[in-house]
Amino acid sequence: MISPKPVTTPAPAFAPPQRKLMGPGPSDIYPEVLAALSRPTVGHLDPEFVRMMDELRVLTQYAFQTDNRLTMVVSAPGSAGMETCFVNLVEAGDQVIVCRNGVFGGRMVENVERCGGIPIVVDFPWGSPVDPNKVEDALKSHPEARILAFVHAETSTGARSDAQTLCALAQQYNCLTIVDAVTSLAGVPVLVDEWGIDAIYSGSQKCLSCVPGLSPVSLSERAVARIQQRKNKVQSWFLDLSLVMQYWGDGLVGSKRSYHHTAPVNTLYAMHEALRILQTEGLENSWNRHQRCHERLRDGLEALGFRYLVDIEYRLPQLNAVFLPAGVTDEANLRRRLLDEFNLEVGSGLGDLSGKIWRIGLMGYSARPENVDFCLDAIGSVLS
Amino acid sequence: MISPKPVTTPAPAFAPPQRKLMGPGPSDIYPEVLAALSRPTVGHLDPEFVRMMDELRVLTQYAFQTDNRLTMVVSAPGSAGMETCFVNLVEAGDQVIVCRNGVFGGRMVENVERCGGIPIVVDFPWGSPVDPNKVEDALKSHPEARILAFVHAETSTGARSDAQTLCALAQQYNCLTIVDAVTSLAGVPVLVDEWGIDAIYSGSQKCLSCVPGLSPVSLSERAVARIQQRKNKVQSWFLDLSLVMQYWGDGLVGSKRSYHHTAPVNTLYAMHEALRILQTEGLENSWNRHQRCHERLRDGLEALGFRYLVDIEYRLPQLNAVFLPAGVTDEANLRRRLLDEFNLEVGSGLGDLSGKIWRIGLMGYSARPENVDFCLDAIGSVLS
Repeated sequence: MISPKPVTTPAPAFAPPQRKLMGPGPSDIYPEVLAALSRPTVGHLDPEFVRMMDELRVLTQYAFQTDNRLTMVVSAPGSAGMETCFVNLVEAGDQVIVCRNGVFGGRMVENVERCGGIPIVVDFPWGSPVDPNKVEDALKSHPEARILAFVHAETSTGARSDAQTLCALAQQYNCLTIVDAVTSLAGVPVLVDEWGIDAIYSGSQKCLSCVPGLSPVSLSERAVARIQQRKNKVQSWFLDLSLVMQYWGDGLVGSKRSYHHTAPVNTLYAMHEALRILQTEGLENSWNRHQRCHERLRDGLEALGFRYLVDIEYRLPQLNAVFLPAGVTDEANLRRRLLDEFNLEVGSGLGDLSGKIWRIGLMGYSARPENVDFCLDAIGSVLS
Repeated sequence: MISPKPVTTPAPAFAPPQRKLMGPGPSDIYPEVLAALSRPTVGHLDPEFVRMMDELRVLTQYAFQTDNRLTMVVSAPGSAGMETCFVNLVEAGDQVIVCRNGVFGGRMVENVERCGGIPIVVDFPWGSPVDPNKVEDALKSHPEARILAFVHAETSTGARSDAQTLCALAQQYNCLTIVDAVTSLAGVPVLVDEWGIDAIYSGSQKCLSCVPGLSPVSLSERAVARIQQRKNKVQSWFLDLSLVMQYWGDGLVGSKRSYHHTAPVNTLYAMHEALRILQTEGLENSWNRHQRCHERLRDGLEALGFRYLVDIEYRLPQLNAVFLPAGVTDEANLRRRLLDEFNLEVGSGLGDLSGKIWRIGLMGYSARPENVDFCLDAIGSVLS
């Protein structure tokens, strides 16, 4: 008989601390979402679960403001939602114009390269939005480009770009668009049909205040047609939408489902609940709430000596990227004190902004006036 | 001001039924795992969470019986665990011997092709194990093959192959091994170090009785060396282990972590708890429990006129693939009655076995004598 090796460190049950999550995500989770998460697991082909998936599609369509039939939730985090859009739409040799004004534009470049595509990178300073004039220059000088990709809300800098104008330009030059809405969805307007976005992905753990691990995705009929014209199979079996949609159905309620992979059943319960909360509040109310909390936070931060990285007209209310007050040099230590003394998480800077800025999130359930005040009090306390 | 479109169908909260899950997975979830799942979310770089990840690695090493430093949990279901192994280890032009005796061997072939590899497919009848003699013939006649890939426990048929013998053969012919242990882990012995497995993946929702959505993975030092020798970047950014491990750390407790993607924090709490339960029970006790329940179920099923697809020496205790009793033709209707009248899920056949067999799972928390008796009573009732 085989005798298995024992473990050397017997682990006790994990009891996570109760944090206030005001970094770049995950945000605080709605209590109703955590409750939905631990409801009894059913099979991924259970008729009741399939019915819930139909509802989930309609709720996701509302969040994205789209009638796209190919609207679903990828069974993995936002990075996999990004990869879903790129591996399905980009084939070897395709030219893709990628706007890069932060970390996530850089990740798009990586995606294009790994699909065998040719990235045409248009760079902008971190903290600035994507400049449509420079994008139009790139579109003009690369008439063979097939896709324009950009990040609507750069999580690394808190800058919002003008997705509507960029999508109109892409259409004028006969390009599809891939849009990163990980941080924007539900925090600021994201109007997929009105703006003519072709492929969009978001994340569960930002302004939807669901647990991390899922990526809502939607593709237009033009994008679906592009996929159907592919010469080669999608390089990822797991993310191949022609297979995934055999499970999610053809966009019609009650359509037949066949097994592709085992869906993350409980996390999808949580997503259903988070989107239900969004629907009940209403998108417009959600946008306004994020803006009001942002203004309250901004006034307090500026009074404490913080300075915004992004010009006022391009600022995302849900992600406040701020330079530390003059003379503050031990930002990592201060963040650690916020965590240890106040159970408060705020985010650090990425890349060149590491050590220079904080990223303070007001996303979803975290965007409440009492959180803003708590956060300002805590920051004031560790700075004093 | 923008006025968002309303949703047409306001959805009520989803209240899933309380099923007994005795299909091919997900299995019934341990109550402690569901409780862990809904604990407060913390950030994916929170020091407390990082400490839990270190424990999770040790627990996963115990489950796999390995000291491999590259042992972690992929943030997506088992299919993504499979893809992780293939995209990291297979480069364009690589010959890969793939054993195919069911659905999941076929999925491996798809993976090889989508990596640009050359699959050398060795086929076996569905319901049979992989025959090591035929595999040795393939290894002999393809001296340039770099990898041998096979499914330890075929979820589509309930057949167990001799992983130890197959790994020894691979080593003899200088091949790495990729082993699918989605259904085998914790249900039957899986001894990664003793057998010399190079890359292995499993799923959270089978004999670990965690919720679906995660894939534990482990790679040997030989596999890590192969990845380091790659000529080209891994085609998936999301599954690129050289990047993922910057977040999971280098295998040493307390190692530095940097952001790659946002981990599915709560589902990892659940995984930690499921592996803790396994550790507390002990692997050997878990294997024995699965076997005892299997024997109890087998006696009852055979008394009801069911007949096993797989010969007795290759049967997986945790997945009972059985032909329906003679004369039973409405199997889909019977399964629907089990679901509606008894809240009991059993699985259908896949591919050519669709409509002919049922797959009755005894996995993890589902593998209890009272479940076996409940299942036999329910099946007896709908057959009578």
